[in-house]
Amino acid sequence: MQAPDFSMEVQISFGHCDPAGIVFYPNYFRWFDRCFHSFLQKAAGGHRKLCRDLDAQGIGLMDVHAKFLSPALDGDLMTLELRLQEWGDKTLTLDYLGRIGDRHVVRGTELRGMFIRRDGRMRAGEMAPLRAALGLTAPV
Amino acid sequence: MQAPDFSMEVQISFGHCDPAGIVFYPNYFRWFDRCFHSFLQKAAGGHRKLCRDLDAQGIGLMDVHAKFLSPALDGDLMTLELRLQEWGDKTLTLDYLGRIGDRHVVRGTELRGMFIRRDGRMRAGEMAPLRAALGLTAPV
Amino acid sequence: MQAPDFSMEVQISFGHCDPAGIVFYPNYFRWFDRCFHSFLQKAAGGHRKLCRDLDAQGIGLMDVHAKFLSPALDGDLMTLELRLQEWGDKTLTLDYLGRIGDRHVVRGTELRGMFIRRDGRMRAGEMAPLRAALGLTAPV
Amino acid sequence: MQAPDFSMEVQISFGHCDPAGIVFYPNYFRWFDRCFHSFLQKAAGGHRKLCRDLDAQGIGLMDVHAKFLSPALDGDLMTLELRLQEWGDKTLTLDYLGRIGDRHVVRGTELRGMFIRRDGRMRAGEMAPLRAALGLTAPV
Repeated sequence: MQAPDFSMEVQISFGHCDPAGIVFYPNYFRWFDRCFHSFLQKAAGGHRKLCRDLDAQGIGLMDVHAKFLSPALDGDLMTLELRLQEWGDKTLTLDYLGRIGDRHVVRGTELRGMFIRRDGRMRAGEMAPLRAALGLTAPV
Repeated sequence: MQAPDFSMEVQISFGHCDPAGIVFYPNYFRWFDRCFHSFLQKAAGGHRKLCRDLDAQGIGLMDVHAKFLSPALDGDLMTLELRLQEWGDKTLTLDYLGRIGDRHVVRGTELRGMFIRRDGRMRAGEMAPLRAALGLTAPV
Repeated sequence: MQAPDFSMEVQISFGHCDPAGIVFYPNYFRWFDRCFHSFLQKAAGGHRKLCRDLDAQGIGLMDVHAKFLSPALDGDLMTLELRLQEWGDKTLTLDYLGRIGDRHVVRGTELRGMFIRRDGRMRAGEMAPLRAALGLTAPV
Repeated sequence: MQAPDFSMEVQISFGHCDPAGIVFYPNYFRWFDRCFHSFLQKAAGGHRKLCRDLDAQGIGLMDVHAKFLSPALDGDLMTLELRLQEWGDKTLTLDYLGRIGDRHVVRGTELRGMFIRRDGRMRAGEMAPLRAALGLTAPV
């Protein structure tokens, strides 16, 4: 597996967990989203700046999928890795892996588009300008 | 105690609760906020419309307080009551009571202001226009 | 499409939305989960009672997928429909459709298992007892 | 002001913010709670271990208060400081300060108790054993 394009640590806390004592699953998606936005922050000054520069409304979700491989508990330190998996003309596929040490906890995929307003309607814009703004002109 | 100005029901669910099996406390504030916004929706077409009409950035929090009187669990149906407690020149105090049947669960107070942009700075605006937009010109 | 096995209404509020003004996507999964738990509440007295009766730790997630078809905003009333799609020996597939009037907002699938502790380890248990407890002995 | 007893950093992200572009206020309480639990993790092996050692159900909230002093936005890095403010016989008062550089964002107070089950009822237990478990036998 290629090296991650970005990673962050998530200290699993009491409030992330449900009465079964394990992470309440929607939290994983909050962390996926935060990981992507932290990547944008580091790579290109953040989502707000990118949207302003690229005249976009947002870099949002079209589709998401996750598998829950093992539970995470209060006190666990999870490493969340982000990989840019594939650029389409109007889509970006992101791969996420959450692990506690070597144990895989969650694996997921986000499909994102860049939404622009044109002729009074929202449309999926071309990804080439985003890719350039991230300094990724060569194939990923 | 006066009749509530607005109330809503919250069906307490598994995902609202923590490993101790009771509601994770920040959720109560999500419900306070939702109750206030639902009140605005019903009374005056919602927060977005009000902000547009009153040229405001938002009707936001300055201060909040809550007491947790008894626990709420998965499966409980909580009634959340909102009372407009006091209008100041630039503030509105809201009182919240969450109860399960007659049992009091949470009691709280939000102090809100209406934020407007003037001379390039954010300021707390006068409350009189909001009060009028809510159809409350007489003392509450 | 078959009639839903359960449905609930979600009043989209200010606090569910992000700086782009649309629902922050992890919230949809909180609503999927709440919809399933509300269904359990209505059909069989709730998750806690079911786990006690069936000697299970929880009826949790193995896999989830969602497509975001159109945005939902503050003030929208979303109807969320749950359909029991398929029972496997050790899995239950749930289909979700969120719509605002006739406009589809989100479509998703949860794959759930019933986790039991046996010989000191967590395992996916047989689904037949859950299906019977829900009063669904015939094919869905 | 005394040095903090614990502090953590919160990278403010897109998903923490509301349509006004600033942090949705209930998130501050999620961070207060996480800060307290991270402090317990560091000082005494975490909430779960403490509850087991002290035969308690949880170290939970009785009362909370916060003032919102200035807004936090996507991209801001907030430092959240925790101070143990006062031990009562059956209460612990915690003081929180969130700041971005020198700018104060939020200031809050949690009043917590340690809940124990005795004679079939939940009661607030003595704080002395918790204080000792945290290695704080002298007055704070």
